[in-house]
Amino acid sequence: MPRRSGRRHATSSDDSASFSLAQTPFQRVQNHMAPHAPLSEAQLAQIDQKSKSLLADYGIEVMCPEARKLYQSVGALVDEETHIVRLDGETIDALISSAPASVEVYSTNQARSLLLGGNHIHFGMVSGAPNVDDAISGRRAGNFADYQNFIKLGQSFNCIHFFGNQTLSPTDLPVNTRHLDANFANLTLSDKPFLSMSIGRERVLDAAQMIAIARGCSVEDLADTPGAITNVSINSPRKFDSEMSSAVIALAELNQPVIITPFTLMGAMTPVTLAGALVQQNAEALFAMALTQIVRKGAPVIYGGFTSNVDMKSGAPAFGTPENSLANMAGGQLARLYGVPYRTSACSASTSVDAQAVWETQMALWGAVTGYGNLIYHAAGWSEGGLVASYEKLVVDCEMLQAMSALLQPVTFDDDDFGLEAHAEVSPGGHFFGASHTMARYSNAFYTPFLSDWSNYENWLEKGGKTATQRATEIWQSLLETYQAPPLPDDRKEALAAFVAKRKEDIGTRDI
Amino acid sequence: MPRRSGRRHATSSDDSASFSLAQTPFQRVQNHMAPHAPLSEAQLAQIDQKSKSLLADYGIEVMCPEARKLYQSVGALVDEETHIVRLDGETIDALISSAPASVEVYSTNQARSLLLGGNHIHFGMVSGAPNVDDAISGRRAGNFADYQNFIKLGQSFNCIHFFGNQTLSPTDLPVNTRHLDANFANLTLSDKPFLSMSIGRERVLDAAQMIAIARGCSVEDLADTPGAITNVSINSPRKFDSEMSSAVIALAELNQPVIITPFTLMGAMTPVTLAGALVQQNAEALFAMALTQIVRKGAPVIYGGFTSNVDMKSGAPAFGTPENSLANMAGGQLARLYGVPYRTSACSASTSVDAQAVWETQMALWGAVTGYGNLIYHAAGWSEGGLVASYEKLVVDCEMLQAMSALLQPVTFDDDDFGLEAHAEVSPGGHFFGASHTMARYSNAFYTPFLSDWSNYENWLEKGGKTATQRATEIWQSLLETYQAPPLPDDRKEALAAFVAKRKEDIGTRDI
Repeated sequence: MPRRSGRRHATSSDDSASFSLAQTPFQRVQNHMAPHAPLSEAQLAQIDQKSKSLLADYGIEVMCPEARKLYQSVGALVDEETHIVRLDGETIDALISSAPASVEVYSTNQARSLLLGGNHIHFGMVSGAPNVDDAISGRRAGNFADYQNFIKLGQSFNCIHFFGNQTLSPTDLPVNTRHLDANFANLTLSDKPFLSMSIGRERVLDAAQMIAIARGCSVEDLADTPGAITNVSINSPRKFDSEMSSAVIALAELNQPVIITPFTLMGAMTPVTLAGALVQQNAEALFAMALTQIVRKGAPVIYGGFTSNVDMKSGAPAFGTPENSLANMAGGQLARLYGVPYRTSACSASTSVDAQAVWETQMALWGAVTGYGNLIYHAAGWSEGGLVASYEKLVVDCEMLQAMSALLQPVTFDDDDFGLEAHAEVSPGGHFFGASHTMARYSNAFYTPFLSDWSNYENWLEKGGKTATQRATEIWQSLLETYQAPPLPDDRKEALAAFVAKRKEDIGTRDI
Repeated sequence: MPRRSGRRHATSSDDSASFSLAQTPFQRVQNHMAPHAPLSEAQLAQIDQKSKSLLADYGIEVMCPEARKLYQSVGALVDEETHIVRLDGETIDALISSAPASVEVYSTNQARSLLLGGNHIHFGMVSGAPNVDDAISGRRAGNFADYQNFIKLGQSFNCIHFFGNQTLSPTDLPVNTRHLDANFANLTLSDKPFLSMSIGRERVLDAAQMIAIARGCSVEDLADTPGAITNVSINSPRKFDSEMSSAVIALAELNQPVIITPFTLMGAMTPVTLAGALVQQNAEALFAMALTQIVRKGAPVIYGGFTSNVDMKSGAPAFGTPENSLANMAGGQLARLYGVPYRTSACSASTSVDAQAVWETQMALWGAVTGYGNLIYHAAGWSEGGLVASYEKLVVDCEMLQAMSALLQPVTFDDDDFGLEAHAEVSPGGHFFGASHTMARYSNAFYTPFLSDWSNYENWLEKGGKTATQRATEIWQSLLETYQAPPLPDDRKEALAAFVAKRKEDIGTRDI
């Protein structure tokens, strides 16, 4: 493990990012309060039972012959004409039982590793957005320059713990090799863990190779210190694409963590009820999670939930709805039922970085945090239902994530904290501003936001009367100006570049 | 009880308010999930014990001779020179033990009563704002025309359960009689419960008289169906003003509910620590709550919390901070410790109805809801740290309260909800839009917002590219245009007007 460079970077990153921004230092976050549990034990048992019925009676279409064979090897009923694979509940339970309850995800910097499981909470950047937007240049197609900016910003914001698959799509790069450029950017511009693109075996193996190079170890070494994590979607309803199952198989072989996330928008990809959506989410998740255990017993696998609803008038996806927030909590209950880590998300649907964007994100975020989301995907910079990665939304979200992290710190009291002696100094109806108890503590007594403006109306007007969204623009600009890359030994950086060049040559214009 | 007119109104109000606004009908809200409890049992015990030490060692300055005598009657140590009253923990426990665990607050419309206690949640309008703001006419001093508009809007929004003391200050009316005009507006423009102004015995008795007239009963009858509720602040630190204690005494005599809310902004009115603030909040609340039980054993009294922090750089109050959200939860733990209902709030500090206003409100609101706030004060229309009642913020908040109410509905499943049969109709990778299971349920399957816009970017732009705050303006305008007053028999309305005229004559320019 590159412990030394990791340490060095932890310092330099915090320095650079805090240039003039009142950021809380990078920290691990746990939710010490009991999780929210909207489903009763009986309802959880119903979801479990009905989802197993769905898998036994209807099954999943598995496109990849290799995956079908693997399922068949544990007794699944495979129809080679329809490609439908039916798996019974007992087999699923037996397979899932070997999945670990927690997994540590390592990065180039040891201080940035993620501990997935229990009440550990990690916030992730927007991922997969085809477009990008900011207040200066407007809405445009995703591109590699903005991709790199988002990695720099995610590195600079201390509240961000990880990057999802491609924070935005670099649509100006060739489709079949852009994952190499994206991985290179992630490994050289940041030392935080990132998820590799999960389309097929080659791409996840490229990521594993590059992570190993950046860490100065072999791909085999990653088995003990997993870091090549990815997120695999189910093509809901009930379809497991070849690229996705191939990625699962490849990473499970290497003992790398795979997140299984059915794409279950109620009313469109699932039945229109929360119960129906959770049954389907659970069935699809269990089915693909089982594959990891067939490939390698004990391989780390994470239960993913992405259940929200659509607007039944237009078919448009909605996020941050009451149903979405409840599903985020319920997904956590299901993950705990099976004893595996949990991935959820904090999304919004609003087309602008306005009040709606924030209330939707907050509703989803509280659902995710109180649901014990070990990985909270899309928590920063997601806009317009995932169609846009927004610079201003990123800054707004990071303020909210930093505040949420502060709220989740355990409340501790010591004898001095009660401040009874301060009352000896302050008369009834007086104030505590000058009390010695206050003076000794005031400078860091409270959470300090970097985006909130608590000026009075006159002062706020004098400063230009800017909304939080308008103030956000200055912050991402300043962060980009003062960004400093984390240290990575030159030889490793060169080896990464050489790997990318070689792989681009190999792949050429081949369709991978 | 005016049961008949109440019933009639429940219908007409819902009709009028739903003209073109997709509102959820008026509903009672309970939080069926376990409350958030950031404090351990040991920490709760510490707060309890230290707050009793504060009352025994430092005491509270009680300005009113009558109140001092009442405290003395139960063994308090009264210093008639400093007016400091010291009360021991055992006496407090004995007094508080007779306060009821729950209380029903009645209104002119039986269907609008509040059940304070347990997991019952009620959302209240902004109260006490000296200014008012909207996007059309701008920021201006509070006045009676806007006061009446806010009552009409609070009546029209189904998510609103009650009004606080004077939703905004009608500063264009004479100070000593404006409570009469405000009460008249509340009783004639709305049938939802409202809190009377708590400054002195005369004002709360005027409210009780007027409530009795509107209900067609006597003031004495109110003892069995309490409705003249008020909120009393402590002049923190440790000062109990005469007007406040007089209001407490007058209402306790009539068995009317009193909320006791210390005004505890950490670092200013309390020590700078959360522990110190909670100790002081608890001491002040218990002390004034005890007075109600001295006056009338078993009189309803509500534990109020208003602990947030100030910006230690400027002294400006901050709301929706992590500390404020935690204090909202912790206050609920304390109220439950003493077995009484709980009042908290959902405030924000932002000067505009922007992203900051929403994340602050959401943080406070989640703290209030997960803390089992039986009365959540200032939940709609509060802006600029309480200096402004905002029309646009009101609409934004009501959307958020309606969504929160939907989230809090218990999740129920029946056998049909799992939708397994729908999978027979939908192929893997297909969609459920046309499935008969969907068709039978789609029209009211999901929560329907009235303010969210889920259009795609192009359609949103075509409609003018308006933010949620901009869209809010149209909504309050339409609601005011279509507002209909709840029914109130003409003779009662005339009696109310006569009462107001008579009292104005009595009071004249006298200082009350």
